[in-house]
Amino acid sequence: MTQPADPDAADLLITGCTVLLHDEQERIVFREDAAVLVRDGVIEAVTSAEGAEGRPVAERIDARGQVAVPGLVNCHTHAPMVALRGLAEDLPTEEWFNDVVWPVESNLTERDVTLGARLACAEMIRAGVTCFADHYFHMDAVAAVVAECGMRALLGETYFSSQGSRGRERSLEFALRHRGAAGGRITTALAPHAPYTVTDADLAATAGLAREHGLPVHVHAAENRDQTDASLDRHGATPVEILERTGILGADVLIAHGTGIVERDLPVLARANGSTAVASAPRGYLKFAWPTTTPVRALRDIGVPVGLATDGAASNNSLDVWEAMALTALVQKSAEGDPRWLTSRQALHHATLQSARAVGLGDAVGSIAPGRRADIVLVDLTGPHTQPVHDLAATLVHSARSSDVRTTIVDGRVLMRDRQLLTLDVPAVVRELGERLPALTDRSHGRRIQAYDT
Amino acid sequence: MTQPADPDAADLLITGCTVLLHDEQERIVFREDAAVLVRDGVIEAVTSAEGAEGRPVAERIDARGQVAVPGLVNCHTHAPMVALRGLAEDLPTEEWFNDVVWPVESNLTERDVTLGARLACAEMIRAGVTCFADHYFHMDAVAAVVAECGMRALLGETYFSSQGSRGRERSLEFALRHRGAAGGRITTALAPHAPYTVTDADLAATAGLAREHGLPVHVHAAENRDQTDASLDRHGATPVEILERTGILGADVLIAHGTGIVERDLPVLARANGSTAVASAPRGYLKFAWPTTTPVRALRDIGVPVGLATDGAASNNSLDVWEAMALTALVQKSAEGDPRWLTSRQALHHATLQSARAVGLGDAVGSIAPGRRADIVLVDLTGPHTQPVHDLAATLVHSARSSDVRTTIVDGRVLMRDRQLLTLDVPAVVRELGERLPALTDRSHGRRIQAYDT
Repeated sequence: MTQPADPDAADLLITGCTVLLHDEQERIVFREDAAVLVRDGVIEAVTSAEGAEGRPVAERIDARGQVAVPGLVNCHTHAPMVALRGLAEDLPTEEWFNDVVWPVESNLTERDVTLGARLACAEMIRAGVTCFADHYFHMDAVAAVVAECGMRALLGETYFSSQGSRGRERSLEFALRHRGAAGGRITTALAPHAPYTVTDADLAATAGLAREHGLPVHVHAAENRDQTDASLDRHGATPVEILERTGILGADVLIAHGTGIVERDLPVLARANGSTAVASAPRGYLKFAWPTTTPVRALRDIGVPVGLATDGAASNNSLDVWEAMALTALVQKSAEGDPRWLTSRQALHHATLQSARAVGLGDAVGSIAPGRRADIVLVDLTGPHTQPVHDLAATLVHSARSSDVRTTIVDGRVLMRDRQLLTLDVPAVVRELGERLPALTDRSHGRRIQAYDT
Repeated sequence: MTQPADPDAADLLITGCTVLLHDEQERIVFREDAAVLVRDGVIEAVTSAEGAEGRPVAERIDARGQVAVPGLVNCHTHAPMVALRGLAEDLPTEEWFNDVVWPVESNLTERDVTLGARLACAEMIRAGVTCFADHYFHMDAVAAVVAECGMRALLGETYFSSQGSRGRERSLEFALRHRGAAGGRITTALAPHAPYTVTDADLAATAGLAREHGLPVHVHAAENRDQTDASLDRHGATPVEILERTGILGADVLIAHGTGIVERDLPVLARANGSTAVASAPRGYLKFAWPTTTPVRALRDIGVPVGLATDGAASNNSLDVWEAMALTALVQKSAEGDPRWLTSRQALHHATLQSARAVGLGDAVGSIAPGRRADIVLVDLTGPHTQPVHDLAATLVHSARSSDVRTTIVDGRVLMRDRQLLTLDVPAVVRELGERLPALTDRSHGRRIQAYDT
């Protein structure tokens, strides 16, 4: 595919596809038989087949029968937890944390995190995910995997107040050290775990650091209704109100889950000084049998973007953001009792611009438009399950699957071509991870990194 | 693969896989490094690698890294409606029927049904579905497609009382003419549409025909709570009570949906004289924003099997029974508020034996065991999204996807090998169907085949 070097040549030309675009009102529209030209990791033009003719380019992809969509963004995950996929099944939240996940995480080594992150990135690239927001431990290892595999990520080192001030300091050191790494593909956040595991004083200190260093905060809050009720009982304030009174809402904040966001939280979020977003991972809410889901409609009404997410695979069992997109549409219809709400086009808006905004990249990715970074996935719609096409948005959201993604491109670089991963060796990762699992999953020591008590 | 004919040779030997089995209490168990021997369409043995050595066999499949599971059964669908996939989106039930689906179905020709059924069978075979229960129009065409593509099916010609007695008579003629066709792969049912479109007199006549001819009845009933409420208002009886008083529950009955089954229906179903089952298609209930789902736990308590289903693709957008399996687990946990309920093993029991029973094939398929018909699918678990495996049942239900099915076998015949369909030509079907869509979807005539008024 590589042709003799031409100094004027663009890097990549994708031809023959339908392209998902946003119009001036951010409505989802489709342009057929289009071409996308990429140079230096940036989308240079979205044009017609004719407009692309004769352009010198280093690499061409013939994408007939495919749709080019912005790469999906996993707005909240714990990528290395794929190592625990299926280990803690059919349990209530408290037992899931206290009896399995937090005991096992006390064994976690940096090598486990490296292998888990590689496996997770392989899964995400194959599922059309080009960017993820990760909130976990040993994040230096995750940053190294992001650098090597070519994905984009917003990374934060998790901390609890039980670690003393050292946890917060390490989260800051991590954020400053890796900000802008991997050619700008890595952005960073401060990552306090949650208002129920981080004290108000630590949250206030975090807010100060966020303002001082211009860093966003990525935090679990109001994960479920029980947490909100417990917070009201103990502190007379909801988790969102705690975020406000500690100054966290003065920074740019990514709130994970928010299924416990209640009516009184809405004006609080609406008046936040920073840019606030929520990541919704609906599969896990069903699996844990939580009574509510993220209040997407109420958040829309106050202008808070809701990005799509999978959470970690220990609860969600996969990092399939495509599934999260479909489930968000289905669960929101059900929760609102309104089949007209959260149409496929709305779901695609959440999956693209709202998810990009949620991870602080609203101007850089989330749309296929000149000047944006070239994070693009090509989706094959020739399978029998995606034919015929009466409504392309519905086909993408409700009929297509992550396995229909044929090609994944980040910053103009092809990370998967025709379902073949180009930057990760899955069998090698699975083999070494398998050898480590007995030590990783041992719970005979009786330790755990934290206790869950909302 | 074919070797010189040996009169003692078995037809097919699958080696090196893990096999999903049922123990004597019908619990799901897994046997590793097993072999499955098939002769004359029947499973002859499930044995060890050693036990299979040296056996003369016509065809071998090396299934290392794969799991052999019973072929999935789509217990309620309208296969040819794939032609309408995505045509009626984000609408309440009544508008979906009255404004789109029933007007369009007034255009339906036998050729449309042939093409739709071919596309649907291609989709299902690729998704690991080996058998489907279909309830639609022009069912001679569907029977011909089943015969040609090699699937198994329970087929019934839909009728409304608005057709007069002719509809019921044609449903009977169809059922008698095709019973046992395609080498026994086709079984048949009487198919009254629903208690809200078929009169009590017609239901009573149907019950008589079912008894007289030993035919099962496949019927929509208590699809949603509104229908149950409307039935109580108009008739003083629930849809299930109407099935009882018209004698339908004296036959073997497959009830589609049943999300409107209420407490008072449970003793009615429990005392039914025939074998009663319910097909649950949870995706559509979320999409239509129905307030309830099929009461699986209550039905379990009275011994009514619940099979998995997708309904038609005009509401469900796919015929992905694998997704229905995962969604059943997730939605049931959520509906019951109990994360311990509907474990992955329970979901697999619904997907296997309960689904087989629901379509009247409880002794023939639904389990990989000697004497059962060889309806088997091989699922590849080597992908990054299905590794590592801590709990194989959870991996199958919550991490694997229909696209992980590599090989689909019905009655011992391979219908898909390594994702390649062997009995259907998808591009040809899509091309011809595409040409017919303008005529099929025309609604300018103002007709519809029926009016929805619960």
